Amino acid sequence: MRTIDWVDGAVEIIDQTVLPGELRRLRLSHVDGLVDAIRSLAVRGAPALGVAGAFGVALAARYPDPAPAIARLRAARPTAVNLARGVDRAAARLADGYEAVLAEALAVRDEEIESSTAQGRLGADLVTQLCGPAPRLLTHCNTGGLAAVVGGTALAVVGELYRRGALGGVVASETRPLLQGARLTAWELQRLGVPFRVAVDSAGPYLMARGDVDAVILGADRICANGDVVNKVGTYAHALGARRAGIPFLVVAPESTVDSGTPDGAAVPIEDRDPDEVLGFRGVRTVPDGVDAVNPAFDVTPADLVTAIVTDQRVIRLDKGDTLGR
Amino acid sequence: MRTIDWVDGAVEIIDQTVLPGELRRLRLSHVDGLVDAIRSLAVRGAPALGVAGAFGVALAARYPDPAPAIARLRAARPTAVNLARGVDRAAARLADGYEAVLAEALAVRDEEIESSTAQGRLGADLVTQLCGPAPRLLTHCNTGGLAAVVGGTALAVVGELYRRGALGGVVASETRPLLQGARLTAWELQRLGVPFRVAVDSAGPYLMARGDVDAVILGADRICANGDVVNKVGTYAHALGARRAGIPFLVVAPESTVDSGTPDGAAVPIEDRDPDEVLGFRGVRTVPDGVDAVNPAFDVTPADLVTAIVTDQRVIRLDKGDTLGR
Repeated sequence: MRTIDWVDGAVEIIDQTVLPGELRRLRLSHVDGLVDAIRSLAVRGAPALGVAGAFGVALAARYPDPAPAIARLRAARPTAVNLARGVDRAAARLADGYEAVLAEALAVRDEEIESSTAQGRLGADLVTQLCGPAPRLLTHCNTGGLAAVVGGTALAVVGELYRRGALGGVVASETRPLLQGARLTAWELQRLGVPFRVAVDSAGPYLMARGDVDAVILGADRICANGDVVNKVGTYAHALGARRAGIPFLVVAPESTVDSGTPDGAAVPIEDRDPDEVLGFRGVRTVPDGVDAVNPAFDVTPADLVTAIVTDQRVIRLDKGDTLGR
Repeated sequence: MRTIDWVDGAVEIIDQTVLPGELRRLRLSHVDGLVDAIRSLAVRGAPALGVAGAFGVALAARYPDPAPAIARLRAARPTAVNLARGVDRAAARLADGYEAVLAEALAVRDEEIESSTAQGRLGADLVTQLCGPAPRLLTHCNTGGLAAVVGGTALAVVGELYRRGALGGVVASETRPLLQGARLTAWELQRLGVPFRVAVDSAGPYLMARGDVDAVILGADRICANGDVVNKVGTYAHALGARRAGIPFLVVAPESTVDSGTPDGAAVPIEDRDPDEVLGFRGVRTVPDGVDAVNPAFDVTPADLVTAIVTDQRVIRLDKGDTLGR
């Protein structure tokens, strides 16, 4: 089951807004429907957004004038670099016609699938090397197959460790406001059979301090040239907790998330999302009427707090002075 | 309007489980009803728990054998030292009869009211000294009148600064799982007229890093002899964020929360609460069936991360080498 795919001339996605209560597929034949799905987080996760961007250009390539739709698609979410990259890769083939664009988009999809397997393998090797045979890992947000096409990034590592019999357990932080951890990661870990528990986001640093966690492993929406990691809000707090507890803080992402054109986290646009996401909880309003919220969807973890970045191609040990430049 | 009071021979509390949707008073004439209210967090907050403990002993003093009820009351929640202290103070008068016990319990109540005013004044002076005339403060959980009898602890400081025209604004972190920030602090700040916004708990450190917060100010459930602060889970993550951002981290609590008999945070029993609090919200289940959670209700902030502790009697500048011993 793929999170996003091209089926009979349209994009099909798993609608992540209704999980875990319902497993529903959406079929999107027009760019504006895809843009809505991206904005509402029906499809989300940096690798999946890259594929969505490429597929969206294939949809647009059938329009008399694809440019306006492609511009809307490219700007649907600003923080993850993969969306713009997927759009740009497919759009570069527009002059060669629809079939060429689609072939490029399918290549983006296939590369993300291969990339996930490689990340899982490299990451599992590193976790075992750093934490021994039964590490208890904490992860944040969702980095599984639902964030990619299949497999995922950090959760691909968790799955690989589990298959190797080399995993002690997982804490999945719930990831307010939209609960990607409690809803999506829990759903995926349960299907994999991995032993895990959910925790509120703010418990993570304390669970590390009291010795319940051997390493933090999570994904990225953009990795800057200096190693700063832009990821789901809450990532930075977990990095601070890991540093104080003296445990590894590991970031797993495809090479397509590494953005050597962005010098550091300060240069990344951080998406502020609708305050209503914070003020309610699945339709139940939690605050008095008239209350406002501040809702940054991402945060920046400075490179000095990151032990290592694992991609499909390499392990960058920032703690040992490695740099991202090739 | 008092959060907890003694009215016509019984304890009356505001039921904090139904706020902000409903302002409901509960009248409790028996210890077991009060124990249930404490366990369900219908009444909560260290100072309020101290008063509840003392009033509960007054209820028990009318029983033929008060001891078993008092033991249940004293053990209703383990982490905040105030509950046991309030119980012990009132119980010390049992030999002198019901009227003596009630007089002691009323004294505990009156002292908490006075204490709140003093904390507000001392804390406001300190915030102005450290942060200037328009500080933007971040607070966690609820430390207002709802955590005490009236006024509160850290939120008493916020209120005092606002009355002085010396407050830039407030971020109230929502405080999962039971949303004391989103539900209770928001309700109180709105009634005070204080400008504020709610944020998810994990956004705090990032808001500090990007320069949106000038100081963190919050309460405590127990302050250990070495200055370690035991408080609502999430406090520690905010302390780590404040340290990295280089902003003050201020703890406000009555002297009754200072426990010189407990050497450090490692010696404090941390209450693990029902996983269901994490797995759902107000009857809406957020995770797939069969999923478990880990739910520590408090965490420990090491003394070295605390800039200052403000009580009703003194300002202890831990950052300048002050100690709690008298």
